[in-house]
Amino acid sequence: MLELLKREEVNSLRSPRLNLELGCFMEGYCRELASIIASREALLFGEFTLSSGLKSNYYLDLRRLLGDWSSYKRVLELLAEKVLKEFESFDVVVGVATAGIPWASGLALMLGRGLAYVRSEVKQHGTSRAVEGAPRPGSNCIVVDDVATTGSSLENAIRGLEGLCNVVGALVIVDRMQGAGERLREHGVKLVSLLTIEELLKCFDQSTLKH
Amino acid sequence: MLELLKREEVNSLRSPRLNLELGCFMEGYCRELASIIASREALLFGEFTLSSGLKSNYYLDLRRLLGDWSSYKRVLELLAEKVLKEFESFDVVVGVATAGIPWASGLALMLGRGLAYVRSEVKQHGTSRAVEGAPRPGSNCIVVDDVATTGSSLENAIRGLEGLCNVVGALVIVDRMQGAGERLREHGVKLVSLLTIEELLKCFDQSTLKH
Repeated sequence: MLELLKREEVNSLRSPRLNLELGCFMEGYCRELASIIASREALLFGEFTLSSGLKSNYYLDLRRLLGDWSSYKRVLELLAEKVLKEFESFDVVVGVATAGIPWASGLALMLGRGLAYVRSEVKQHGTSRAVEGAPRPGSNCIVVDDVATTGSSLENAIRGLEGLCNVVGALVIVDRMQGAGERLREHGVKLVSLLTIEELLKCFDQSTLKH
Repeated sequence: MLELLKREEVNSLRSPRLNLELGCFMEGYCRELASIIASREALLFGEFTLSSGLKSNYYLDLRRLLGDWSSYKRVLELLAEKVLKEFESFDVVVGVATAGIPWASGLALMLGRGLAYVRSEVKQHGTSRAVEGAPRPGSNCIVVDDVATTGSSLENAIRGLEGLCNVVGALVIVDRMQGAGERLREHGVKLVSLLTIEELLKCFDQSTLKH
């Protein structure tokens, strides 16, 4: 199901001329992602309070991509390509509830890895666990969410996984660049995104001008 | 990605001898599902309070299946086969948060349908919606959860979708047979399960005796 990039794109990523050719490639998928986000009206302008408590005059609602199969599948392909390129070895993909779960689910299915998710609050009924999916203790895992802002949700997930799984990295679609990378680095976890918000907004402007 | 049943199984499902051969087929996938559940230790015995508030001396934790890729994928295949057999036409697969989201995500991906999910509580930040995924208004949708007990979570999801999507059916892995079918019927929604709890416990006994 994972449609790999065209051969010449893969070659350019893996060639010694990586830095020379990466800009070109990034611009390509940035525009494509901006175009998907524009078509699904997933970038909203107005007054918003984010889950971190911060106020913002725009809101990136990547959950809107889910409703369109081709958008959902295409972003999963980009995430799969990115995570295989950035992280050597992992057994489990862990979604941050709730927005990270659909992305973690699709990635786990595509990549043949186990799936788990971390609740934002531990429920009071049933088995009262923070981590669901019963990952094998000691597994290497990747934590996945749709957007990173201050990194508090990702940090909460990393804390929930302590003593259970070894977090080898974190992956989001867009990094809003408000401290998440630094916060995760304190836990020894590298945060990787498909795009930063600056890259996206720049490509979004170009993309919407074209539409 | 959806591996269809073997040709003879599909033929028997579609043949006029359906009723004669269904028992045999059901027993086959019941044993397989019981075997998966046993291998993932997803049926627990003890004292539990369910999300419905009911007490139970066993707890079926199907989230434990997620951590093993082949178990997750195989149950998705059974769900996909079931939903295509039971419901004529639907555009969107809607997961009930949080346990229904991984199953809805996999089904949407496999079947080429849109994905959405319904929160159990409306969040206070961001765009404050109960339904996420931006399904096209008027879409036909299937609501998906892992387990049905009294049907309160499914009913809550169906209410959340009112005025947005047309719910053509509900799908779960196991129906615990404590009123969910009747409750959903009052909303004009048919509940379909891979197995009832009685079927599962019967097959589980046989399966565990064999293991």
